[in-house]
Amino acid sequence: MNEFSLIKQYFTQCGESRDDVLLGIGDDAALLQTQPNSSLVMTMDTLIEEVHFPSSTSAADIAHKALAVNLSDLAAMGATPAWFLLSLSLPHSNEDWLSSFSQSLARQATQYGIKLIGGDTCKGPLSITIQATGMLENKAVLRSGAQLGDHIFVSGTLGAAALALAMLQNKLDKNDDFESFQQALNLPQPRLDVSQIVKHYATAMIDLSDGLLGDLEHILKASDCGAELFLDRIPMPNLIHQIKDYHYVLSGGDDYELCFTVPERYIKEVKQSLLAQKIAVFDIGNITQSGLTLYKGNDKQTMDISTHQGFQHFG
Amino acid sequence: MNEFSLIKQYFTQCGESRDDVLLGIGDDAALLQTQPNSSLVMTMDTLIEEVHFPSSTSAADIAHKALAVNLSDLAAMGATPAWFLLSLSLPHSNEDWLSSFSQSLARQATQYGIKLIGGDTCKGPLSITIQATGMLENKAVLRSGAQLGDHIFVSGTLGAAALALAMLQNKLDKNDDFESFQQALNLPQPRLDVSQIVKHYATAMIDLSDGLLGDLEHILKASDCGAELFLDRIPMPNLIHQIKDYHYVLSGGDDYELCFTVPERYIKEVKQSLLAQKIAVFDIGNITQSGLTLYKGNDKQTMDISTHQGFQHFG
Repeated sequence: MNEFSLIKQYFTQCGESRDDVLLGIGDDAALLQTQPNSSLVMTMDTLIEEVHFPSSTSAADIAHKALAVNLSDLAAMGATPAWFLLSLSLPHSNEDWLSSFSQSLARQATQYGIKLIGGDTCKGPLSITIQATGMLENKAVLRSGAQLGDHIFVSGTLGAAALALAMLQNKLDKNDDFESFQQALNLPQPRLDVSQIVKHYATAMIDLSDGLLGDLEHILKASDCGAELFLDRIPMPNLIHQIKDYHYVLSGGDDYELCFTVPERYIKEVKQSLLAQKIAVFDIGNITQSGLTLYKGNDKQTMDISTHQGFQHFG
Repeated sequence: MNEFSLIKQYFTQCGESRDDVLLGIGDDAALLQTQPNSSLVMTMDTLIEEVHFPSSTSAADIAHKALAVNLSDLAAMGATPAWFLLSLSLPHSNEDWLSSFSQSLARQATQYGIKLIGGDTCKGPLSITIQATGMLENKAVLRSGAQLGDHIFVSGTLGAAALALAMLQNKLDKNDDFESFQQALNLPQPRLDVSQIVKHYATAMIDLSDGLLGDLEHILKASDCGAELFLDRIPMPNLIHQIKDYHYVLSGGDDYELCFTVPERYIKEVKQSLLAQKIAVFDIGNITQSGLTLYKGNDKQTMDISTHQGFQHFG
């Protein structure tokens, strides 16, 4: 199987067809029609074996995560997924692996209405880069709009992926919840469901890829403000409370939940709109003038956060 | 230097600013304004150390080539460059390397009016993926439009990059032209100058990345036709005639010249328009009903091409 037959067999049909794809895979480049009243949102993320996922990760899970982390970025801007390109570097052409990978990719692409339109396949260390483009009819939700007094929300449980990674690396004993933690690590669900509602109310939004404190700090810096957080309001696996090691939830990373800020006056409405879709979100604190303070709970006993930082390459 | 300061120092300003970039590097994704009367052209290419370039290649040359091969794809569609995203995987953060890389990238980006709007930086094997987007006001020039009787052109000398690679790999003795061959290998010039004129006349176009015969075959398949080529009309370094090893020019690859087909009635006009810009192109053959025949010259002595194929990963 050569490069061209590989692309034809596994990638030519990936995601439902879209009217705005004038030409997909098969020429020097793809050709796309834009909408007159929408702007584009573009993101790109790479996953590399042993850097972003353990070698034991299945082809299906790798494909899922490679697309999910890009969809998560589109969600964080309030955009609707449209097209993506895939660059796949593979040590060798393994048909079972490619079949699992492409089926998983197609499943998620179809789920979110995003179409594979092009890319590149070559022989090399296992690495997957996806560039995804979304559409935006309204204003984007940036990191820079948080206002004093806004409430800070997260869209789901934090820390499970980091627990799974620690268990896989034998830094933590596996417990009965290992499988569900591993699912959080390998099969993150991009929160486009949350984003599509919250984008009408949020003043700032980010997706949590590098850990809550580090990512929230991006909002605080961009918005020139501070925050107070309440640990007992942050949803997390029980195990974290048991081992009392809160770095998993504060700086563990790989959560791919959304963190967003909402002005007091919209809180009732946004919660009701989300509940109508059976989506729960968690009010974990407030935007303040400056600094970042973590309280254990409403008794306002502070916790030291100086040792918690988000994940950084070359850090 | 961590990931964020690295991006800020080396990549936040890359390429001239553009009015249609509403938001560049620094949020979850970039935000772009589209034009009402143009469609988009999107391509993505990866370069990996030891797969696409030798380890001895300089940071500046790697950056140049990574962007050039994408610009070459945009040229092959008749598009005008607009935006690009960069995913850079680096074994370690070396400031000299990053400085050379980013300066070279910025130089070419500025030259072609394309702006870096986002991407990803991580620690891993040396690998560069660029996704580039161009604008198209007219129709795209596809691979599928070649017609019986069209003349086949190439935009410049073929085979020099393949000679350089063979010399670097000690498969061929270096000669006095080695430096210029190496320049062809490391610093390919995307032929946007040719494309911007030819796009108004060409029925089909492709950029030559995998070798003349293999890439021309993509046009022939897509257009359901054949071709006859005349070896003595193909521009190539003298060395190839001396060693009489024509695989360098027929299937060597890495040329990044354009190959395009033009109907007889437009030939005079397209040549004049190109000459007015001091651009020479080379009429190397004609589109036929079927098959692919290579003649030595006008005496129509045929040459065996069965051993010449374009480069294919996993081939």
